[in-house]
Amino acid sequence: MVTTAVTDTTAAAKAGLRKVELPAKGSKNAANAKGSKNVAPATSVAPRIDIDWLSRYLLGTWSEARLESRRVAGRPELQRIEGQTRAEHRTTVFGQLHVLVGEGAVNKAFPKHLGGEDDHGGNIAGFEELVTADPSLQIKSGVQWGLFGAAVLHLGTAYHHETFLPAIMSLEVPGAFAMTETGHGSDVAAIGTTATYDAATEEFVLNTPFRGAWKDYLGNAAVDGTAAVVFAQLITAGVNHGVHAFYVPIRSVDGTFLDGVGGEDDGLKGGLNGIDNGRLHFDHVRVPRLNLLNRYGDVAADGTYTSSITSPGRRFFTMLGTLVQGRVSLDGASTAAAKIALIIAITYGSQRRQFTAGSDTDEEVLLDYQKHQSRLFPLLATTYAASFAHEVLLTKFDSVFSGAHDTDVDRQDLETLAAALKPLSTWHGLDTLQEAREACGGAGFLAENRLTSLRADLDVYATFEGDNHVLLQLVAKRLLTDYSRKFAKADVGVLARYAVEQAADRAVNGAGLRRLAQNVSDRGSVARSVGQLRSARSQRALLTDRVETMVAEIAGNLRPAAAGSKKPGAKKKAADLFNQNQNAMIDAAQAHGELLQWEAFTDALAKIDDPGTKTVLTWVRDLFGLGLIQKHAAWYLINGRLSPSRAKAVEAYIQRLTLRLRPHALDLVDAFGYGPEHVRAPIASGAEAARQTEARDYYRDLRASGDAPVDEKAQKK
Amino acid sequence: MVTTAVTDTTAAAKAGLRKVELPAKGSKNAANAKGSKNVAPATSVAPRIDIDWLSRYLLGTWSEARLESRRVAGRPELQRIEGQTRAEHRTTVFGQLHVLVGEGAVNKAFPKHLGGEDDHGGNIAGFEELVTADPSLQIKSGVQWGLFGAAVLHLGTAYHHETFLPAIMSLEVPGAFAMTETGHGSDVAAIGTTATYDAATEEFVLNTPFRGAWKDYLGNAAVDGTAAVVFAQLITAGVNHGVHAFYVPIRSVDGTFLDGVGGEDDGLKGGLNGIDNGRLHFDHVRVPRLNLLNRYGDVAADGTYTSSITSPGRRFFTMLGTLVQGRVSLDGASTAAAKIALIIAITYGSQRRQFTAGSDTDEEVLLDYQKHQSRLFPLLATTYAASFAHEVLLTKFDSVFSGAHDTDVDRQDLETLAAALKPLSTWHGLDTLQEAREACGGAGFLAENRLTSLRADLDVYATFEGDNHVLLQLVAKRLLTDYSRKFAKADVGVLARYAVEQAADRAVNGAGLRRLAQNVSDRGSVARSVGQLRSARSQRALLTDRVETMVAEIAGNLRPAAAGSKKPGAKKKAADLFNQNQNAMIDAAQAHGELLQWEAFTDALAKIDDPGTKTVLTWVRDLFGLGLIQKHAAWYLINGRLSPSRAKAVEAYIQRLTLRLRPHALDLVDAFGYGPEHVRAPIASGAEAARQTEARDYYRDLRASGDAPVDEKAQKK
Repeated sequence: MVTTAVTDTTAAAKAGLRKVELPAKGSKNAANAKGSKNVAPATSVAPRIDIDWLSRYLLGTWSEARLESRRVAGRPELQRIEGQTRAEHRTTVFGQLHVLVGEGAVNKAFPKHLGGEDDHGGNIAGFEELVTADPSLQIKSGVQWGLFGAAVLHLGTAYHHETFLPAIMSLEVPGAFAMTETGHGSDVAAIGTTATYDAATEEFVLNTPFRGAWKDYLGNAAVDGTAAVVFAQLITAGVNHGVHAFYVPIRSVDGTFLDGVGGEDDGLKGGLNGIDNGRLHFDHVRVPRLNLLNRYGDVAADGTYTSSITSPGRRFFTMLGTLVQGRVSLDGASTAAAKIALIIAITYGSQRRQFTAGSDTDEEVLLDYQKHQSRLFPLLATTYAASFAHEVLLTKFDSVFSGAHDTDVDRQDLETLAAALKPLSTWHGLDTLQEAREACGGAGFLAENRLTSLRADLDVYATFEGDNHVLLQLVAKRLLTDYSRKFAKADVGVLARYAVEQAADRAVNGAGLRRLAQNVSDRGSVARSVGQLRSARSQRALLTDRVETMVAEIAGNLRPAAAGSKKPGAKKKAADLFNQNQNAMIDAAQAHGELLQWEAFTDALAKIDDPGTKTVLTWVRDLFGLGLIQKHAAWYLINGRLSPSRAKAVEAYIQRLTLRLRPHALDLVDAFGYGPEHVRAPIASGAEAARQTEARDYYRDLRASGDAPVDEKAQKK
Repeated sequence: MVTTAVTDTTAAAKAGLRKVELPAKGSKNAANAKGSKNVAPATSVAPRIDIDWLSRYLLGTWSEARLESRRVAGRPELQRIEGQTRAEHRTTVFGQLHVLVGEGAVNKAFPKHLGGEDDHGGNIAGFEELVTADPSLQIKSGVQWGLFGAAVLHLGTAYHHETFLPAIMSLEVPGAFAMTETGHGSDVAAIGTTATYDAATEEFVLNTPFRGAWKDYLGNAAVDGTAAVVFAQLITAGVNHGVHAFYVPIRSVDGTFLDGVGGEDDGLKGGLNGIDNGRLHFDHVRVPRLNLLNRYGDVAADGTYTSSITSPGRRFFTMLGTLVQGRVSLDGASTAAAKIALIIAITYGSQRRQFTAGSDTDEEVLLDYQKHQSRLFPLLATTYAASFAHEVLLTKFDSVFSGAHDTDVDRQDLETLAAALKPLSTWHGLDTLQEAREACGGAGFLAENRLTSLRADLDVYATFEGDNHVLLQLVAKRLLTDYSRKFAKADVGVLARYAVEQAADRAVNGAGLRRLAQNVSDRGSVARSVGQLRSARSQRALLTDRVETMVAEIAGNLRPAAAGSKKPGAKKKAADLFNQNQNAMIDAAQAHGELLQWEAFTDALAKIDDPGTKTVLTWVRDLFGLGLIQKHAAWYLINGRLSPSRAKAVEAYIQRLTLRLRPHALDLVDAFGYGPEHVRAPIASGAEAARQTEARDYYRDLRASGDAPVDEKAQKK
C-alpha cells in the first residue's frame, strides 16, 4: 500500500508539474478556483480539486456519525452565545446536554442491550464535531458520557452497567469523573484519596487525608453532579492495592452535598466556562462494597483482594488505558477547530484588501502577500496531516474497543498513538487559532468572529486528559522500549555493527539516507536536489532517520542507568540521567508523532483517484513533509543528513509549493465541509467582499464623475 | 562603553566559571538562593545576585514614576475583577480612570502651564505599569491621554491646547482616537473619511462615503466618548492634501450622538472588555475651521492650504510619528506582563512537586526537571533583554519628545527602534504567558491565577498600534535604505568588492566571523568552541553578521526593481519582486530587533559593579544570545557561519547555562520588584508549598505510626 502510494504520488506530481507553473496570484484565479467546476477555464490546464469528493473523503469511516453530529451542532440552540456570564453559560450548556439526549446523540458507545449501539468509533467522531457548536458542550458531554459514563462502562461490570448506566445515559444522574487531585494531576498513581475496606459493614470508606488530596478541576462537580466515579487508593486488610474507581453518590437531588462530602467551585476559568468545574473532598464517606468498579480488581466480602492482572503496575495502566478515548476525541476536536480557524482566515484573506502595491487604484488581496500565504498555508497542510492521522487513530481506537483487535499490544499501540498525536494536534489547534486571529487583525479579535473564543476554550486541551509533555515522555519511553527489545533479540554482531555506525561519520549514517547522499552531490544543481526531496521516499527517509537516530542516541545516553540498576544510589543516578535526557526524549517523541502524521497523509494520498485532487493534495503533503524538514533543518545539517545547499533548496521549494497552492486555498478549506452554521464568523460571510466592492465602486464612480479631488502629490508632478 | 562591557563581562564569566560548577538541582539550593543574603552558605562560593540593587537597576531612569505607578496599580479598587460582565467591566474601568485623575497620575506628558509636567519618559513608564492592575485600565487610559489627548497635544497648536486639553486631562471630555477604519487598519493613508473645506462657512465637512470608511475599533467610541480626534482626507479647493486630524464633538453629555454622527458598539472582544470599543460614521458633519489640528498643515479662511512640510509623504509620516508613544508603551507593558507571568510560573514551579523520580518518598520539584527549566529560563532571559531594550527605547523616546534631540533623523531612529522592538516584545509577552499557563497545568487555567486573563487581553497588542508584520516591514525598509545609502556614497571599488564577497565561499564571509572561523577548527574540541562562543564579541559578530548578510541579500534581490523604475509596468514588477522578498524582509527586521535587544542587554551589563550580580546576569545574557543563535542555527549552518560541531556546542552550552541558572531563578524573578499586590495569583502565594508540606508531613507521620498500609508491590517482593 505504502509503496503504491509513493509511486502514484510521484507520478501524479510529475504529471502535474508543468501544468501548474502559472502565476498563482490574483483574486481572479482565486475566484475561478472557487466553486467553478461547471465553468471549465478555457485556457488553463491547472489541476482542480474535486471538492465534493474530497469533502466526503475527509469525513472518513464514520462519515454518517460525523454528518449527523454536524447537523446537530448546526442547531442554533446548541451553539455558544458569546458574552454570557459563567452562570448563564453553565445553565445553557446543561440544558444543551438534555437536547443531545433528546437527539439520541449520546448513546452510541454504550451496550446495545441498554439502548446503545456499541459503536465506539462513531461515538467519538460525533462527539468531537460538537466543538463547532461550543467547546464547553463538547467537553461537558465528554465528562458525562465519555469519562463518568465510560468509567462505569469500562471499569465496572454487569451490575454497574445495569444499575448505573441507564440514569447516566439519560442524564438523570449527572456525574463527575473524580481522578485528578489538587496535588496530583499527571501522577495519578500518587493520589492521596483512600478507599479503605471495612469488612464489618462490607463498605468502602472514602477519605481525603489532606488539602492536596482534594479532587480538583472536575466537570459537573461544582453544581450539576449528583454522583461521581472517584479514584482512590484501595486499601484492604492493611494492603494498598493501588488506584481503583468507586461509584459514589455526592449530592441529593436538591443539590446539597451528602453527609461527609464537601467541595467548592473552581470559579472562572480561561475558557470552557459552560462547564461547572469544581473540587470534592470526602470525610470517611461510606459506599457499599459493590460500588467498587471491579472489572480489573475486586474485594470479596471478607476483604480478600483479587485481580485478573497480577502486576499492580500493569493493572494500573490497564485501568487508565480504558480512558484513552478522551485523548482520541481531543485530537479530533482540535483538528476540527483548526479547520474552522482556517476557513475563517483564508476566506477573509481572500476578500480583504490592503495597500496598493502594484497598481495605482486596486489594493492587494491579503492572501496574495507572500507572508500571508507563508503564515497560513503550512498550517493548512498540517491540518490535513492531522486530519488523516486522526482517522488512523480513530480506526485503531475502534478496532480495540469493538473487541476486533483487543490484545495488550493493540492497547499499548493505541495508547502510544494517542499520546503521540494528541499533543501535536492540540498545540497545532492553538497555533492555528492564534495565527488566524492575528491574520484577521482587529476583526480577528472581535468575539463574534470566534477565533479568540475558540482559542480560550481549547487552551486547556494542551494540559488536560494528559499533559502534552507528560504524554510525549510516555511515547519516548515506548520508543526506547521498542529499541531495547530490538537489540535484546539481536546477536552480538548487530550490536557491534551498531557501535561502528554510531562512531562513523554521521554524514553517511542511516540506511535510507546513504543512497540519497550518494545520488546527489551537495554541489549539484538545486533543481536536482529538489527533485529528490520532492519524492515521498526521500521525505520518509529523512523523517524516519531523524526519529531513529534520536532514539538511538538517547538509548546510548541512558545505558549507564540500566547497567548500574542494582547498586546503592542507582535510582537517583538513573533519575538524574533520565532528567538530563528529558528534552531529547520529548523531541524524539514529537518527531515520531510528526512522522506518524506524515505517514497517515501519504497513505491517504494512495486512495485518491481523481488526478487533480491527487496532484494538489500531494503538494499539500509535500508542504507538510518539507515543512517538517525545514523546521528541523538545524538537526539535519548538524547531523550531516542535509548539505547546506540542499537545505536551501528545501526553503526555495517550500516557497514554490506555497505559490502553487494559492489558487487552491479556498477549495482546500471548502473541502473541510463545514457550513455557515458551523463557521458563524461575520468576517468569513462575504461581508468583507461586499464592503470592498462598495468602496471600489465609490471611487470608480467618483473618478468617472470628474469631481474627484486632485491628489496634492499628483498636482506637484 | 560597549568595549568595556565586553571585557568586563568576559572577565567576570571566567572568574565565575569554576565556582559555579555545582549541582544546580534541588529545592534546598533554591531555598538558600531565595532571600538568604544574611545566611551566607558555609561552603558554597557560588555567585549571588544582589536582588535589591538589581531591582532598582531594572526600574531604570524613570524609577520614581514607575514606583509611583506600581503603588497606584497596587490599589485594590484599580484592579481587574475577573468574571465581570462586559458592561460591569466597562463601568469599573471608566470609574478607575477618574481615580487616576484623582491620583494626578495622568498629566505627566502635558505642558507645565496646563498643570502637566512635560515629562514624557516618566509618563510612559508610569502608564505601562498599569498593565499589572488591569490591561483594560492601561489601554483605556492610553486611549484618553496617550492617543486622544496626545493627538491634540502633538498635532494641535496653542489654540487647541488651551481650548481642549484641560477637559481631556480632567476626563471631563472622554474622547476617541478615530483613525482606523473598518476597511483600512494598517494603511492609514488610504482611509476613506473626508474633511472637505467649505470656505463659505469656514467649516470642514466630515463625511463617511461608504461602509468600509466607518471608523472602527475605537476605544471610548461605543459609550463614553463625547468627542473624537478624527483622521480624514483634507480636501480644499479641489485638492486632497492627505490625512489630517480634526477635533470633532460626537456626543452630547446625555450620551446621544450629535446630528450627523452615528456608530455602533464593537461588542464583545477576545479581551480588554473594560474598554468600550466602537464604530463611528459621519454624515456631512460640520466643524469650525479651527478644529483642524494644524501643527503640520493648515487651511486659511479662504481655503488656501499651507504646510511647513512640502512633501505630502513626509508630512503624513511626521504626523503619524507623533503617535509613536503607543508603540513604546506596549513594548514596556508587554514586558511587564511577561515578568508577572514568570514570577507566577517560576514561583509555582519551585514549590509544586510531581513524580518521585530519584527517591522512594520525595517527589521532585517541577523546576528541577530539565524540560521545565528549558521551557521557562530562555523566556526569562528574553524578558531581561526586552526590559533593558525597553529602557533604551524609552530613553530615545524621551530625548525626542522632550526636545533634547529632536531632529528628523532622531525621529526616524525612534520610530524604527519602536517598530523593531514592539513586535518582538508583544509576541514574547504572549509566548511567555502561554508557556507559563501550560507550565502551571490546570491551575494555570484558572482565572484567579491571571495567566489566561492577561494573555487574552494582551493578544491584540500584536496587531494594534501597528500590526507586528507591518511594523517589521517598516524596519526592513529602513535597513534597506541605510544599506543603499552606504553604497550610494561608496565608490565603484567597494561595490565590486562586495560582489566578489557575495560570490565567494560563504563559510569565510563576514568580517567578524572570519577570524573566528580560522581560530577554531570545526574538528576542534567542544570546550574550545564553547569558550569562543561565550564571548560577547562572538555573539555580537554572529548576530550582526546575520542581519547584514540578510539585508545585503534582499538588496541584491530587489536591485532589478530599482533599475527599471521608469519603464511601463515597472510598478507592478517592483511590487512583485518586493512581495517575493517579504518573508526575507520580515526575518531580517526581526533579526535586527533581536540584535538591538542583545546590545541593550550587553550595554546594561557594563553598568553592573557587584561581581555576583554581574556573573549571573552575564549567564542570562549568554542564554539569550546563544538562544538566538540556536534558534537561527539553520541559517548559520546553511551560510557557513557555524560548523555542525560548533552548532552542537551551542546546544550543549545552553544546557549548561540553564542548569547554572537554576539556583538563581527565584532571585531573577524577585528582582522584577513586583509585590503580591501586583502578582495576585494564589498559586504563587506559597499556598502550594503549604499543601506540599502538609501532604509530606501526613505521610511521614503515617509511616512513623506503623499504621501505614503495605504497598501491594512491596509485599510481592
